[in-house]
Amino acid sequence: MIKIIFNNEVTMPYSPQHKEESRLRILESAAKSFLHKGYEQTGINDVMRDAGMTRGAFYAHFSSKSELYDKAMLYAAAHGRLASHKNSGQRGSEWLMTMLEGYLSLYHLVGEETPCPLAFLVTDIANREPQVRQTYTRIYRRMNSLIERYRDNPSNQQNEEVLALTALMVGGVALSRVVDDERLAERILTSCRQTAAELLDIQ
Amino acid sequence: MIKIIFNNEVTMPYSPQHKEESRLRILESAAKSFLHKGYEQTGINDVMRDAGMTRGAFYAHFSSKSELYDKAMLYAAAHGRLASHKNSGQRGSEWLMTMLEGYLSLYHLVGEETPCPLAFLVTDIANREPQVRQTYTRIYRRMNSLIERYRDNPSNQQNEEVLALTALMVGGVALSRVVDDERLAERILTSCRQTAAELLDIQ
Repeated sequence: MIKIIFNNEVTMPYSPQHKEESRLRILESAAKSFLHKGYEQTGINDVMRDAGMTRGAFYAHFSSKSELYDKAMLYAAAHGRLASHKNSGQRGSEWLMTMLEGYLSLYHLVGEETPCPLAFLVTDIANREPQVRQTYTRIYRRMNSLIERYRDNPSNQQNEEVLALTALMVGGVALSRVVDDERLAERILTSCRQTAAELLDIQ
Repeated sequence: MIKIIFNNEVTMPYSPQHKEESRLRILESAAKSFLHKGYEQTGINDVMRDAGMTRGAFYAHFSSKSELYDKAMLYAAAHGRLASHKNSGQRGSEWLMTMLEGYLSLYHLVGEETPCPLAFLVTDIANREPQVRQTYTRIYRRMNSLIERYRDNPSNQQNEEVLALTALMVGGVALSRVVDDERLAERILTSCRQTAAELLDIQ
């Protein structure tokens, strides 16, 4: 017993900072797995192992797999390409062009550390809990507002147009990710990039 | 033993037509379940029960759940809105307009007997077997060719444009199906319909 009382873990409990770091490690590993394999094929054990922790540590951070999925989506949205705001010297249309080139690219499909959850999970969301759909919708609204904000000439009519633009982006990435022909995937991405630029008047 | 030999099932085996009817009943029930609930949340038992058959009858028709998924996608594609060809009196652009109105509608999201597998399964496909991705790609190519065929003035350049158009359609349906706000879903569909009609020069 004495041994346990003087054990490091008891006398020096983890600091709040350490707990936050662990949480972020779990989220990073969860986001990667959920985005690439979907909800059903992601196991908490694997996520925790990948984060270098034991399964037991999971419940100190999250109450369920569904909560983890929800938070991992937010993590991915906050660390993805759409979260990289434009620098001060850049015009809105320049940022939009760069964003489109990155979003609608083969790299986004296979190389991106945190790809866009809107495109990678769109049908996976259909059978999740209401809280998850609510978070997805929030991220989706944010994507639309961000593009709207960086347009050079925003107007009411264009607000509605942006909904078609983001549907094109999400559909383009989701489709090119699953077709079994890389050349076709590239053609889809190119066509979507061109049409998106036209819709934004930045071609 | 004598009883078994004179049993109806032995002396009068099911006809090929009966077998085909059973197969179609399974496919119809499978398509409904896979499209709305995805691969993982669909069970063979439920599909067979819904089709009014025993689990044992399944393997007389399909070798695996993966094969059932593959064939159910083809079934849905053959029975969906995109499979309803235009009547002889109709111009291509009229058919396209009707198709867009049906495809990009709230009814497609909730009421359609066989909704479009391209839109309902796009991220579900990501983790399926190569055969399934191949079938998905075939259905996707067919969707593009069909729209191309009914355009009034097809050209090479427009061939590429159609890829953006179908990405917009698939993305619009997939997104509006999962956002948790019906008014937002309607706005997405309306915006996609308008933009799609513009891309096709039929607005």
